[in-house]
Parts: sequence; C-alpha cells; structure tokens
Amino acid sequence: MPFVQVHIWEGRTVDQKRKLAKAITDAMVEHVDADPTGLHVAIAEYPRESWARNGVLGVDRKDV
Amino acid sequence: MPFVQVHIWEGRTVDQKRKLAKAITDAMVEHVDADPTGLHVAIAEYPRESWARNGVLGVDRKDV
Amino acid sequence: MPFVQVHIWEGRTVDQKRKLAKAITDAMVEHVDADPTGLHVAIAEYPRESWARNGVLGVDRKDV
Amino acid sequence: MPFVQVHIWEGRTVDQKRKLAKAITDAMVEHVDADPTGLHVAIAEYPRESWARNGVLGVDRKDV
Amino acid sequence: MPFVQVHIWEGRTVDQKRKLAKAITDAMVEHVDADPTGLHVAIAEYPRESWARNGVLGVDRKDV
Amino acid sequence: MPFVQVHIWEGRTVDQKRKLAKAITDAMVEHVDADPTGLHVAIAEYPRESWARNGVLGVDRKDV
Repeated sequence: MPFVQVHIWEGRTVDQKRKLAKAITDAMVEHVDADPTGLHVAIAEYPRESWARNGVLGVDRKDV
Repeated sequence: MPFVQVHIWEGRTVDQKRKLAKAITDAMVEHVDADPTGLHVAIAEYPRESWARNGVLGVDRKDV
Repeated sequence: MPFVQVHIWEGRTVDQKRKLAKAITDAMVEHVDADPTGLHVAIAEYPRESWARNGVLGVDRKDV
Repeated sequence: MPFVQVHIWEGRTVDQKRKLAKAITDAMVEHVDADPTGLHVAIAEYPRESWARNGVLGVDRKDV
Repeated sequence: MPFVQVHIWEGRTVDQKRKLAKAITDAMVEHVDADPTGLHVAIAEYPRESWARNGVLGVDRKDV
Repeated sequence: MPFVQVHIWEGRTVDQKRKLAKAITDAMVEHVDADPTGLHVAIAEYPRESWARNGVLGVDRKDV
C-alpha cells in the first residue's frame, strides 16, 4: 500500500533506479509488511541548481 | 486553503490537466469546504524510468 | 497508479474524507485514465498552528 | 544528501521503523552512491480514515 | 502562489512556528517574487522515532 | 536536520534560487534551532500547465 518518494540529485542511470526501487520495495515488504502490489516508489530528481545543503546550492559546492 | 499534489507518470495533455485540476478543486470545495481562492493543485510528472510499482520500474513493465 | 496527497487543516469528519477520496479517485480515472486499483489518496492534516497563509499562522487569523 | 519520505498507515513499532530506515539508507548508499551523513529517511504515518486505495478509505475496507 | 513544506522533528512552540513562517514568506517574496496572498507554509512535524539520519532513528541518537 | 521543499512555478534564475535557499536556511537556524549541516532546501519547479489555483491552470490565467 505505501508510497515512497526519493528526493535526489539528477544523474542516475536507469539501472541504478531499477536496483534502488527493487531494494526499497523489498525493505518495505520485509520490515513493515507492506503489500507490494500497491506499493509505489517514485524518484524525484532535482538539478544541482535547485538543491541546497547547509545553505549552499549544489552548483556552488566545491566538495561534490 | 489546501494544497493538493498529484504524482503521476508524464504524458498527459494540457486539456487533461485542465479538467483534472478543475474536478479536484470542485471536489475540495464540495466535500471539505475548501476556500478555492487559495487552493492549489500541482501535478508532478515522473518519467517511467523513475517510478516503480511492485518493485518494477514503469519502463520494465509489460502490462502498461 | 498515481498518488494524490491532500494537505489540509485538521478537523474533517470521516464522512467528508470518504467523499473527498471517492471524488478525487473518480476525477483521476475520468480525466487522466488512472488505474484505480493502485491509486492512493492520502490526506495529511495539519493543526492551525502549523500552517500559515500570507505569513500568518492559522491560529492567528481572524478571518477563518 | 537525499531525502526519502515513506508514506504509510500508522501502527508500526519503533523496531520496525528502525530496521526500515536502516535498510533504505543502505539501499541508497549501495545503489545510488548517496552520502549517508546527510541522508534522511522520514516516515509519515496516516490513520486509516485518511488514506484511500481504489477510492475506498482504509476504515471501510474489508480486506485489510 | 507557492507552497513551502517544512519537514522537522516535533517540539517547536507556536511562537517559533510563527516566526519561521513569517521569515520564509518574506524570503519568498523578496527573492522569488512570490505573491504572498496565495503563499502557504506548512510545517510537518515528525516524532523522533519516525526520522532517521545516517540510518539511525532520532530516538537512538546520542548526539541530539 | 530538516528538509524544506519549495513548490513553485518554473522560471527562477540560479541567483534567485541561491538567495532563497540561503534565506530559508538562515530562518531555520534562527527560529527553530536547525542544524544547518544536515539541512536541505529543495526547489521543485512546475510548468504553468501543471499548476492550478482556484481551479484554473497557470497557462489559462490572465492575471499572471
């Protein structure tokens, strides 16, 4: 039944998304008894100019 | 006053969105007495490679 | 398939929520061809001290 | 860096949440190279009267 | 017009929320020309057992 | 620790986003004692055809 939203920077491959969605689904079934038939995992990707950590946009960071 | 977010696969026409936003707004006014002047409906669209049901990405499904 | 989140002040009855969820589901099926078997509507309720419009918390407003 | 929101019915134990948060974090690190120091997992729980699938509130369903 | 959601641990006073909502609204008007009449700020509070950073629930952390 | 999501129409410059993210971060630290090292601000932008106020899509409004 549940809905899981992943908020992340853009730039993952389809295969990375495939494995992530599968692993999160498995975790939901194993740990919180989720019914997988209605379980959705949605990945919302943000450009680096639209996400800040510690007040600094991704495009302005030197460490990533 | 409220805010309604619709999370959906991409690919709807403007006219589909127009009718959906109107119908959701009407439902909010009729059933929960929402003030429409501050009522927002936002449609977040996801590519099929970014949404999984039952652990399977949309791009990998055979049934849709 | 989709997921609809309604963000609203707390205080609706179960029957209001029942009718709202049904009406939004019907709108999704009619206007954007959603598959209702995996369609979720989730209502997130906020106390009036946790929601502001125009910079003013609900608990501080005189007009509602 | 990312943020993961889990939308689910209320009623899980602290230990179930502990295991779920750990498993999702591990999946994010393994599959999408997330930096775990800034990775948050937030579990939003909804009462059964505030979540509908297929247009029917959880409180009205016979099958769950 | 916009909608701002703040996801945070529970435990803030009404006055803290009042000042936060005002400051975020002012920032939206000053920096992105938001129309404040339709601008909402909603604060979603989570118990410490429902939020993990770095894979560890708030209730299990020693440093906060 | 917290996560702030800004839902807004598309069309802001990087510099507008930079100032907004900084101002929201500062407000979170000042008013609710947020730890900025784990504080994220994410800006989700919507095209005008995907956001309605008062039941009317942005593309159909004459006043904006």
